[in-house]
Formats: sequence, structure tokens, C-alpha cells
Amino acid sequence: MAAHKLRVIPLGGVGEIGKNMTVLEYGQDIIVIDAGLMFPSEEMPGVDLLLPDISYLLERQRSVRGIVITHGHEDHIGALHHVLSRLQVPVYSTRFTRDLISVGLRQRGVRSAAELNTFAPGSKVTLGAFTVEPFGVCHSIPDSVGLIIHTPQGIVVHSGDFKIDHTPVVGEPTSFSQLAALGGGDVLLLLSDSTYVELAGYTPSETVVSDTLDRITAEAEGRVIVTTFASLISRIQQVLDVAVKRDRRVFVTGRSMRDIVSMALKNGYLSAPDGLLCRLEELKSLPHHKVIVLSTGSQGEPTSALVRMANRDPRSQVQIVPGDTVVISATAIPGNESLVSKTTDSLFRQGASVIYDRLAQVHVHGHASREELKLLLSMVRPRYFVPVHGEYRHLKLHADLAHLMGIPRENVFVLENGDVLELGQDSAEVVESTDAGVVYVDGLTTGGLDDAVLGDRNLLARNGLVVVSVAVDGENGRLAGRPRIITRGFVDVGEDRSLLEKGQAVVMAELDGAGKRLSDPDLVEDKVRDALGRFFQERVRRRPVIIPVVVDVRDTRRKTFD
Amino acid sequence: MAAHKLRVIPLGGVGEIGKNMTVLEYGQDIIVIDAGLMFPSEEMPGVDLLLPDISYLLERQRSVRGIVITHGHEDHIGALHHVLSRLQVPVYSTRFTRDLISVGLRQRGVRSAAELNTFAPGSKVTLGAFTVEPFGVCHSIPDSVGLIIHTPQGIVVHSGDFKIDHTPVVGEPTSFSQLAALGGGDVLLLLSDSTYVELAGYTPSETVVSDTLDRITAEAEGRVIVTTFASLISRIQQVLDVAVKRDRRVFVTGRSMRDIVSMALKNGYLSAPDGLLCRLEELKSLPHHKVIVLSTGSQGEPTSALVRMANRDPRSQVQIVPGDTVVISATAIPGNESLVSKTTDSLFRQGASVIYDRLAQVHVHGHASREELKLLLSMVRPRYFVPVHGEYRHLKLHADLAHLMGIPRENVFVLENGDVLELGQDSAEVVESTDAGVVYVDGLTTGGLDDAVLGDRNLLARNGLVVVSVAVDGENGRLAGRPRIITRGFVDVGEDRSLLEKGQAVVMAELDGAGKRLSDPDLVEDKVRDALGRFFQERVRRRPVIIPVVVDVRDTRRKTFD
Repeated sequence: MAAHKLRVIPLGGVGEIGKNMTVLEYGQDIIVIDAGLMFPSEEMPGVDLLLPDISYLLERQRSVRGIVITHGHEDHIGALHHVLSRLQVPVYSTRFTRDLISVGLRQRGVRSAAELNTFAPGSKVTLGAFTVEPFGVCHSIPDSVGLIIHTPQGIVVHSGDFKIDHTPVVGEPTSFSQLAALGGGDVLLLLSDSTYVELAGYTPSETVVSDTLDRITAEAEGRVIVTTFASLISRIQQVLDVAVKRDRRVFVTGRSMRDIVSMALKNGYLSAPDGLLCRLEELKSLPHHKVIVLSTGSQGEPTSALVRMANRDPRSQVQIVPGDTVVISATAIPGNESLVSKTTDSLFRQGASVIYDRLAQVHVHGHASREELKLLLSMVRPRYFVPVHGEYRHLKLHADLAHLMGIPRENVFVLENGDVLELGQDSAEVVESTDAGVVYVDGLTTGGLDDAVLGDRNLLARNGLVVVSVAVDGENGRLAGRPRIITRGFVDVGEDRSLLEKGQAVVMAELDGAGKRLSDPDLVEDKVRDALGRFFQERVRRRPVIIPVVVDVRDTRRKTFD
Repeated sequence: MAAHKLRVIPLGGVGEIGKNMTVLEYGQDIIVIDAGLMFPSEEMPGVDLLLPDISYLLERQRSVRGIVITHGHEDHIGALHHVLSRLQVPVYSTRFTRDLISVGLRQRGVRSAAELNTFAPGSKVTLGAFTVEPFGVCHSIPDSVGLIIHTPQGIVVHSGDFKIDHTPVVGEPTSFSQLAALGGGDVLLLLSDSTYVELAGYTPSETVVSDTLDRITAEAEGRVIVTTFASLISRIQQVLDVAVKRDRRVFVTGRSMRDIVSMALKNGYLSAPDGLLCRLEELKSLPHHKVIVLSTGSQGEPTSALVRMANRDPRSQVQIVPGDTVVISATAIPGNESLVSKTTDSLFRQGASVIYDRLAQVHVHGHASREELKLLLSMVRPRYFVPVHGEYRHLKLHADLAHLMGIPRENVFVLENGDVLELGQDSAEVVESTDAGVVYVDGLTTGGLDDAVLGDRNLLARNGLVVVSVAVDGENGRLAGRPRIITRGFVDVGEDRSLLEKGQAVVMAELDGAGKRLSDPDLVEDKVRDALGRFFQERVRRRPVIIPVVVDVRDTRRKTFD
């Protein structure tokens, strides 16, 4: 009989639930699944990225036995530098994922003696009360795994990010032999990827993209320029294979693409015959129909190689000419759509033909569609089910699917980040909700931003700013000169000078006759803010952020912060 | 022999080209096709909407003979108040479009004696050198037309927004008999809708949505809540028809939906048996399986009826309960995706089932797919072709399609807004580019915003703001007290007090020893901005907008604007 209950807690995350970090806790033992970063939404201007708040782990740091990583995408490994600089615990991952983690930690200047262990499908690692056994899955990055986790309460299966691909381009086909060996019916809990639950049927195999790339390359009279995610090694392999078949040489451009291709060739994740890759000097002398360019920029990132080409940036190694065919072998991640569209338009304007996902099957994604999700559910036959990886609607649809597959509704839990699900062998309930916040990162600081600061940024963005400087002579109860008005993002000052002049008159009228009360700076600030706020609201129906700055020319004891 | 060339100019627009307003000019005669507004992109915080800059028309106002409207969507009629208050010209449209224009002008408080004329397919209107003959097309709003325009140089055909629907729910099937009657080969120029050129095949008929709505309603055990565009009259008719068939009554919620349903019933654009619609008091006593609610909010608009339901707003007329089925019978317009997703998640959280376009065919759009575009091209067989309505990539793909259909490349023109295409009977070229800007609207003003103001807003949003108030005694060459620092959207002041204290010290050190130069406020401002900028850049890698406010306590002659 187990002495404790098993606690499952999705941490961090905005929008998506149970994606970036999940905690499993049993008594005095904690393991963490993944440690990823999040990208900001449009309501977070100036935020570079978000990290999970790990207070829950820091408060229990003596219990944390290790971090287990399912695969090497940034939303699963990108918070490791943040976690490892606060928590000295070993990390477990497959070999390729470990290589990516090392690169990431180096780039972020983390020189901690982080213990980066590797494991492989079929091996087992015991971490306190937990024994973790990874199993290979297919996803849009090599060496991805799901996890079979033996706990004192029973077996927990975590799908990781997965799809079922019987003919992957790199690595092994998805194999559920380890799951099948569990015998079915013995699994306490399944946590499964919900990202593409909206899509009926099966996700196509990576190989369909090979056919499309080959056809495009065969038909192209000039250069073929392919952009994709640098970590999508299988896609890169497909491009290399097409180049060999169509007798073209490959030029790689963009820092992250060059770094990863060279690492992957060195470590055997990619294979290419000698002399396939060419250097910049060679590129210049090759006929265009003998060239494939492999480039960063699939998300329209402003400083990427493809965007430089699109914008005729003179620093670009490649200049677009009519006859070039650009293949965007990726989909826009939500939030990047307009950057990608802009880049596509610019490439067309330069005279390129651009082929993207709406026009041809130049990309398949890396997540299971509905029939694949059903297959996993029917193979694992868990007692309890928790959909993860998705926004609330995805989890809810996945929960409905699990119910359709025979799991009773009361055994299916749609969690929010921070919810604590407590499981016994025959019981499960959400017992509390911990604070699962995020940490905003802008520049070097990870602590200076919060919701209030972002709220102010949005106010400034929508309404603009008016600074009113008022010099008063509090001792004699009169204004010491005319107020000064400085605006940013409010109105075109040249055009609307009279509006600001009237605003100045409004301030003077408001303060006229205030007499000795002018010596109270708080009162003067309130009066200025109210009077000008009303004036702008009436005149132009706008509510700029108004910052009064009151200086008493006879007083040197002044407030210094606000 | 014609004495002048025919000039075709797409005006206004950001992103999309030839959508919101197009000018046709022949000698001293100008007609304008459509006068629509645009919606702001995410880089335009606080902007409510955009209008085309009509300087070109104002400079030639004695030539403008009239405005011809193709259909009643806001991106085709929403700038009329702006144009008509500056330009007294007659407007021509079909009857339903006229009714929508009247409503729009009233809402915007335009009481001009605007002459709103109606025309019908088959009729002809002569406007100076132009004779305009509308022909009926199917689109996602009733009474849409394309235009056959007889000019001294030849016939111009403008498709309007169109699709081909042989079984529309409201109005006539698309009929090209008037176009066919032109005999083919006699058309000088075709301008055609490019919105959905990326989609292969045919756009499905509206009737497929009827089947889906009927099946959902038949299976729903509780209320069915349908949201769609208020102007999508055919969809509303489908909902009314399903309600009759399934013996449910219809409650309409949301101001624009109520207004348009009542207008459309009164004017015969919608038909419903007596007693189908119910009032709020009746709704409360009806069993849930006897109710369909028709609601605004398909774009996740924050103040719409559906979003109020989703957020449990106590002011909402309808509160979501488990058992409700919500149907989002629309697609998210680009830019609205995250609002719609958020609304969907909230509805799920309230316990509703939500059915949206990724899950079932609850919406079909209103534009022609590739095969329909080909059909129009092959029927009209124009000498020259200009793709319109779309971003650059759409126009380019449509141009390629026209070439594929046999139009020589040199006769196909992908224009940018402002380009002037000059056509003779056997010649066509882009001769110049006029200034086709946009006017930003925020609040009441249409003139106060420009790119510089928006640039400042984006800077403030991304970086936050630091106001530094420095009181100096210029006469004696010393600081009159400690500088004061006020921030908004920069850092959490409580947490980062020491950063601001050090910033204050930096300012004091910078000005210490400036002596009599403190009497030069511009110099002091520059010094403060540079020193603090460097300090923040070094310490936290950020570049806030820094606004120094210098007050000389011995000087009352101060600058008052900036």
C-alpha cells in the first residue's frame, strides 16, 4: 500500500496548458518533465520570452531528483538555463536533445556544472520513487521520446510531443512496443499531446514532403531556396537528398542553420556525400540550376537570412533574382502570420516564385491528429486521462475524445496550469491550485517586468503620452511661468499645436487661484491630470497617459521617485 | 478615336491592393468604385480604423461624377462618411447596400444631403464619359454586384467581391448572362477579386452550411447559440429556417444583429413566420431545447454579446450553462485570431460545447477559388488584366493564373496602391505613382495621427518610459535639488528601486560641474538623455524612451512645447 498520493502539476505556461513544465511529486520525491520557454503574445510588447515561475520547485528544492526532457524544442528545453542556475539537479535526455541543450546553455552563458545525462529508449533511470523509461516517438525533431514512469501508485505514461509516422525520413518509425508490453489496463494515468486534436484523420508522413520538394526542384529553372526550422533535421535531410538526386549543390545560410547543420553532420544526425555543401565563393560561380540554398527565416524573423534576401539587404549573402524559387517548408507559428506574409510578399516583389503551405504540401507538422490520438488511447487504456499541450479548447476536445473511447468522464481531468491533481490507485481529484505564473524576460532582467508594467505599456501604446511640467512658486501661491507640454505618440505636434496650446491654457486656468495650495505637489498633480484628461476626452475623445511634473521653484525638498 | 487615355488607379489600402477604393479617370471625368475603410494591424496600437487618403480626388473634385458601390461590407462603404463630408457627389448602389449605407451614415452622424441612388443589375447609369451597368454576383452579403463600365477606350469589367454559387440561400444564383452578352473579346480590361486565389477548386455553396446547422441543432439537447457576421443575411436566414424546421424559437442578441435583423425583416431581405422571434421575457420561460440564440461576437469583439456570455458578464442577456451548444459560423478575420480563440476557450470553460470551422463546415467564405477565377477569365477574355483585392502575393498568383489562361504577361499588371495604369485601345502602361496613403482614425480626430506618432507609440510599448525632471539654478550654475525619476512600463518600481536610485546618481554626476552650462536647457536635456540611456543599456540592456524635463528655478522664460 502506497504511503502517499501521487501529485501531478502542470506549471508555467500562458495559453497552453501542461506544455512547458510538468511536476510529478510523491512524498519527498519530485521529478520535472521538460523545462521550456514560451513566446510572448501581442499584449506583451517588448517582452522577449517567458519562463515558468518555479517557486513551487524552489520551495521544495531538496526533493527535486531530476529533470527529464522529452525533446529538444525550445518550448521544452529553453528554460533550463533559468532552472539550472537556481536548482542543482541532473538532467536526462536523449543524445541529440542533450547536444541541443549544451548549445543552448553555452549561448546563454550558463557555465554551471550542470549534469547532462543521456538515456535511450528502453533504458531505465531511477529518480527517487520514480523509475523513468523513455520510448521513441516521431516528432518534428530527432530523438524525441515519450515517457513510461513507474511510480508507487502505478504507471504514468506521458506521450511527449508525438505523431505516428511509419516512414519517417530520419530515425525509427513510431513504435509502441514498450507501451504494448505494459499489457494495457495497468496504466494509472496517461498524459497526451492535444495540439492537433482538431484535425480529423491521420497526420501525413514526412515522406510526402520529399515528393513535393523533388518535383519543385526538378521543375525549377533557377535556384531553389528552401527555408525551414533549423531543428527540423529530417526536412534538412530531405533537402540534401533532393540535391543529390537533382545534381545540385547546397549552400547553407543563416547562423542557426549553419550551426545546426554542421553539428548534425559531425554527430551523424545528418548525412551528405562529400562536396555536396558549397562555400560562398563557390556559390557565386555555380550556374543557378545547380544550386539549392538552405536558409533560416521560416517565421519571418526580422534578422534572418531569408528576410534579408526579401528586403534586398546588402549584407545578405544571397540576392533574390527573377527565376529563383523560394520554398517555405514550415507553417507560421501563431503570432508570426503577418511577419511570414510580409516576407512572402517581399520575395514575390523581388521576382521570386514563392511556394508555401497553402499552395503545395511543402510541410507536414509534427503532432498526432485525431485517429492517432485514439490509437494511443486504445493502446494504453489508462484508468485516468489528462490531456496536455494545448489551449483549453484543445484539452476539452481531447477529453471528449477520451470519453468517446470509453474512459468515464469522472476519470478525465482538464487541468489549468497550477492545478494539483492527486492520484491514489483508485482515486483522483484536483485538490488545490498552486501559483503557476510566468516570468517575463526583456533584455537582461528577468525580474523587472510584471503585469502592471505591461499594463502601462499597453496604455501608452494605445493612447500616447502627455508630460506636463508645471513650475510653481508655492511660497507666494502662484505659477512660476507657463506650463510646458511634451507629448509622445499622442498627436502630430506640428498639426495640432492649437490643441496643446489650449491644453496649456486649461492647466493655467485650473491652477489660477489655487493660491497657497500650489505648495501641495500631489494636489497640483491631481488637478492637472483631471483637468487635462477631461479636456482631451471632450476635444478629441482620447485618454492619453498624463504625467504631471510639478517643480516648486522655492522648494528643494522634492519627491524623487514615482 | 478617343482623345484621352483611360487611367485606372487603386487608392488607399495597407496590405491589400485595389480593395477599398479604385479611381477610373478619362479626361475631365472621374468615377470612384467603392469607398471602404481598413482595419489596423498590430503595429498600429490605438488606431480604430483607417481611411483612404483622398487628396487625389479633392485636387480634382470638379471632375468626380459619382461613387459606385459594389456591396455593403465596411471595407467597401465604411469611408463614405469621410468622402461625402468633403466631396458632394452622388452615390450609386443596389437597394440593400443603400440601406446599409444610410444606417452607417446615420451612426456616424453625417447629416449631409448625400444623394444615395439605387440601381439594379441590368440597369445603366451614365456618369460623364462612363456608363456603368451592374451585374449580380454572389458574395457573403445580399445584393452584391460586379460592374460593366463602358468607357470611350472600351469596356472595363470589375468583378467586385464574388463567388459562383448555383444554390445560394438568399438572392439569385450567380449569372454571367450580361457578361456573356458582351460577346467575349471586346473587353479592354478586367479587374478581378484575388482574395482566395490560393485555394484550388471551387468554393462550396452556402447550402452546405444549412445541412451542418440542421444536424447540429437536431442533435443539441440544450440551446443552440449561433454567432455570425450581422451582414451575412443568408446565414441568418439559414438559422431562421433551421429554427422553423426544428421547432425552436429565435432570440436575437447584440445591437448590430438586432438592428440588421429588424431592418432586413422589414425590407424583405429576410423572411420568418410570425412568432418565430421571441423576446427576452419569453426566452426565460422557454425550455432550452426550444431555443436558438442568434448573437454578435463572431470576431471575439470585446463588447459583443457572445464575449459577454463567455465572460459571465452580469449585463449579458444570456448566461452560458452546460448543455449549451455554441456555433461560430464565421472565420476569424486576420488579426482577430487570438480574440476568437480566447472567446472559444472561455465558452468551453463555462461548460458549452463549441463548434467552429476547424471542427465542422459551419461556414463557407464569400470569394471565388481558383476554378471560379478561371471561369470568369475565360468568359470575359479581356485584353488587359489587373488582379485586385488581395495582398501582393495574391495578386501575383492571380496574374500567373491569368497568364496560364492565355493572357500575355505584358498585358497583366500587378499594381501597388497609387499606381496609375494608363490604357489606350492597344496600349497599357504604368505611367506614374500617386501618393495613395491612409488616414488613421483614433477617437474623433482623423488628422492627428501619422506614422511618426505610431512609431512613438510602438517605442513606448516595447521599451517603456522614463521621465527625468531636473531643477537647475542656471544663474548660479548648480542643481536645485535632486533629479526626480518617473517611469511607466519600464520596470517594477518597488522591485527595482536601486536601479532608479543609481540612475538618479548618474544624472547628478553627469550634471555636476556643468556650471553655467546648466542655464542651457537643450544641453542639459541632451546630457541627461545620453547618460541615462547608456546607464540603462549597460545595466539592463534596455532602451526606454527618456524624456528630460528641465526647469530653471531662476528663469521664467521657458519652452512650452516639445
